[in-house]
Amino acid sequence: MARGRSPGQEVARGYDPGRVRLAVPASHSALQLLRGARDEGVEAILIAHRRYYDAIYSRFPWLYSRAVVVESWRDLLAPSVVEQLREANAVLVPHASLIEYVGVETLLSLELPVLGNRYLLEIEASWDRKLSLLEDAGIDTPRRFSSPREAAEAGVPVIVKLPGAKGGRGYRLAAPRDVEKVAAELEKQGYRPGDLVLQEYVVGVRLYSHYFNSLVHGRVELLGMDIRLESNVDGLARVPPRLQEELGLEPSYTVVANMPIVARESLLARVLDYGERFARAVERATGYPAAGPYSLEGIVTESLEYKIFEFSGRIVAGTNVYTGLQTPYASLYWEDPMYMGRRIARELREAAEKGILEKIIT
Amino acid sequence: MARGRSPGQEVARGYDPGRVRLAVPASHSALQLLRGARDEGVEAILIAHRRYYDAIYSRFPWLYSRAVVVESWRDLLAPSVVEQLREANAVLVPHASLIEYVGVETLLSLELPVLGNRYLLEIEASWDRKLSLLEDAGIDTPRRFSSPREAAEAGVPVIVKLPGAKGGRGYRLAAPRDVEKVAAELEKQGYRPGDLVLQEYVVGVRLYSHYFNSLVHGRVELLGMDIRLESNVDGLARVPPRLQEELGLEPSYTVVANMPIVARESLLARVLDYGERFARAVERATGYPAAGPYSLEGIVTESLEYKIFEFSGRIVAGTNVYTGLQTPYASLYWEDPMYMGRRIARELREAAEKGILEKIIT
Amino acid sequence: MARGRSPGQEVARGYDPGRVRLAVPASHSALQLLRGARDEGVEAILIAHRRYYDAIYSRFPWLYSRAVVVESWRDLLAPSVVEQLREANAVLVPHASLIEYVGVETLLSLELPVLGNRYLLEIEASWDRKLSLLEDAGIDTPRRFSSPREAAEAGVPVIVKLPGAKGGRGYRLAAPRDVEKVAAELEKQGYRPGDLVLQEYVVGVRLYSHYFNSLVHGRVELLGMDIRLESNVDGLARVPPRLQEELGLEPSYTVVANMPIVARESLLARVLDYGERFARAVERATGYPAAGPYSLEGIVTESLEYKIFEFSGRIVAGTNVYTGLQTPYASLYWEDPMYMGRRIARELREAAEKGILEKIIT
Repeated sequence: MARGRSPGQEVARGYDPGRVRLAVPASHSALQLLRGARDEGVEAILIAHRRYYDAIYSRFPWLYSRAVVVESWRDLLAPSVVEQLREANAVLVPHASLIEYVGVETLLSLELPVLGNRYLLEIEASWDRKLSLLEDAGIDTPRRFSSPREAAEAGVPVIVKLPGAKGGRGYRLAAPRDVEKVAAELEKQGYRPGDLVLQEYVVGVRLYSHYFNSLVHGRVELLGMDIRLESNVDGLARVPPRLQEELGLEPSYTVVANMPIVARESLLARVLDYGERFARAVERATGYPAAGPYSLEGIVTESLEYKIFEFSGRIVAGTNVYTGLQTPYASLYWEDPMYMGRRIARELREAAEKGILEKIIT
Repeated sequence: MARGRSPGQEVARGYDPGRVRLAVPASHSALQLLRGARDEGVEAILIAHRRYYDAIYSRFPWLYSRAVVVESWRDLLAPSVVEQLREANAVLVPHASLIEYVGVETLLSLELPVLGNRYLLEIEASWDRKLSLLEDAGIDTPRRFSSPREAAEAGVPVIVKLPGAKGGRGYRLAAPRDVEKVAAELEKQGYRPGDLVLQEYVVGVRLYSHYFNSLVHGRVELLGMDIRLESNVDGLARVPPRLQEELGLEPSYTVVANMPIVARESLLARVLDYGERFARAVERATGYPAAGPYSLEGIVTESLEYKIFEFSGRIVAGTNVYTGLQTPYASLYWEDPMYMGRRIARELREAAEKGILEKIIT
Repeated sequence: MARGRSPGQEVARGYDPGRVRLAVPASHSALQLLRGARDEGVEAILIAHRRYYDAIYSRFPWLYSRAVVVESWRDLLAPSVVEQLREANAVLVPHASLIEYVGVETLLSLELPVLGNRYLLEIEASWDRKLSLLEDAGIDTPRRFSSPREAAEAGVPVIVKLPGAKGGRGYRLAAPRDVEKVAAELEKQGYRPGDLVLQEYVVGVRLYSHYFNSLVHGRVELLGMDIRLESNVDGLARVPPRLQEELGLEPSYTVVANMPIVARESLLARVLDYGERFARAVERATGYPAAGPYSLEGIVTESLEYKIFEFSGRIVAGTNVYTGLQTPYASLYWEDPMYMGRRIARELREAAEKGILEKIIT
């Protein structure tokens, strides 16, 4: 399905390609985006809530040419801000924190060029569409259950996920016999049954693969991998089993930090294939290319299957492990240090120079 | 409280700022300090016990301009060594191994410039003063108990720590009902009740933040983060619960290795604030600035609190993960590869060039 | 024991030292070998099974000057391939995947220069000779048991390993009382009792040390360390003990990924010593130097013993964590970014330039 010009592509028609800037919303992965822009000689405009501006970004004024500071989260993309960004020929880099602050609907109708595919963000916001996209792409995923009863009968551990990208907060792991109880508890807290996602909890090594789909270079690049550290579950491993039992400690999954990782080389056959399948599936589903960064988040089992349980249709925070650095995988494509923040800025610069900015935005 | 000239500041008055050298005690983080000095064109003098010199440092003669090799640990700062260092215009970099070898009293009265704040080392050496400093700084810390009975009644897991920085050796984790028994056992081994530290054992993701307080640039820089791997506790996680039980395996906490890590970006608000609060509290407590490197060691909980259970008032060994490399956080401040060993050498060089050496030593 | 010219040394007599190339078999660590060759200006010839060529290496044509693509694993070193490589003055880099594909016997009689010591690969292929070599070197190893009964009586956890390097697949951890049962199960699956290796399972922090024995520079360099992530065992740590029990989950050890790590600096005394002891023992055992890369794989206990349970007598895949990057340990020897793939290419280039190619091959 091919579609007409997106709102951002429409706006970009009036841009001066020689003076394109990057609009970087504070938090999430803003620091590497700012550093990356500087590495590529692209001017960056920071848009920040005052609280984060004062606490974090005001300490690094050399990383941006201008800061737009607002007093509330929703104002990050208030009309006056958008107006300023348009006048500055700015392309907005969306990330999970921005989506959380302003809502995906705001981004869908935003009259500003958005780096990558804004319609993919809409898919990402719905568990059902998100997992269906992976399945349509022909990517291996964990079993998904349509009801707590079905999950209980499967006899496998089940992870119960909540709607929205909250960095893993509130997720619950349940034994087969407990899954109905856990679902009932969450419903009492106000979640609708249809909003809970029930996935088989696959036991293995987590692997988050970071891709960059370059429309300028005509290839999907694998730029890195990371593993997330989550609280409290990664701390529980250090508490003796008897004590966990005695204190009634249950795992929780708030993302706290990330570590760099590389996969067994033969796994790259699947990793690279998944990255390209995903790009094709996104284009089929939205009518626009999956330009720019995305991530596939999965588990590798003992038989070396790679089961993707989630994706990020934009830059993922795990790429922060490489801020300012060369990454092991980027070194296969690029001579100089290349990390996601810089890769984005380079694509923007090159697309503008070649007059194909429209290709990498929506 | 402002104080007079420290012994090292007094000695430094006679130094030739154009010929300042770095004195690096063997072990701990010596290799990155030596490499860092070389990167900055600062001559380094290694002071080493023969055992480590022969086994490690003699293999890297290109990393130092001179080695002072002694036959016993205490002799590392024997009068003849100190005399040589003074004649060489040397500034001593203190670290945990040096403190263990020569004792903190030796460092307090040492007539040699010590990089950073030697009085902070004295505070670090006392659990009570150490934790009080964190509390005075307004930094969130785990609950501390004044007696095993009080700890037992709190109903939380408790970590029992021993006096002195022994790299975590001998620490014990206790369930509420066992904490009194564990304390009694340790007392039988000769520890005085008042010397044992009883802290709530917070479950979450460990995060060790490395700071550099630059008096030359007037800012506290966040240069990196790491996570420690401890034996046997990080190996126990790979032993099935039933087997741990059957074999009676209990966790122990000897630091063996370190891995690089980055935090969720929004956590930096707290991380940066803690780093600056700490610097102010040190200056209040000692009358001298917290110049140079230090580290805050904590746990991030599932609700994203960052609870600091300990600090290092000097270079921490976890910075070794970045030896010779750019670090993700350093790349926000520095263009070139910058890691703690090099940062120290650069500050020394710049302070000497600007004639403000006195500011960064005691 | 000194031996005559090896088959590869014989072939290399006809090589033009000014036109030496590197032959890199696909998979395992091929990507860093290719990138390393390019960094050093050494032409690389990729030899690949079509499946991996299409899925992985065809995406990186700039990393090699020629690709020899075959349709079956055994054909990787078919006579026609070997002939092509000889004509190209190529030196073959052996790795675990190549050995798995063609068998160690093929490599032993191969009439092509093999980087490093091909006879060490033969020792590596036999558990008994492998562990004996470590013991002969005077390297600390875990207890080894000659029968399940003996292992059971030792009262320690036991890891049961299978013949061949299968990346840890199929290994079993057994409690003392279960070890005889586990061995019996494996025998029913067709393993001969004498082929099973019964080692004490040492609890602690895993540490894989990467060495490069340079005949050009006359030293054993420590170039890096890593830690392996294995499926499912590293995922089990995140499953509550009660749930592991309920679902009957048992650990398995398929290597999936690697992470960078650095050791406590004082441990380097042992790490460096082991690396040199190993080199000497290899030369005693085979009559040829242990030229080039190898790895010692062990556990550090809570009392800081470093017990080596295995070695790799060639490049180990864990070095992939540093592909294209400077490593913390390499920075002690080398100014520029240096990682194992590049180190190999540099040694080859330098040996050829100095006319001592024969020294670094067999």
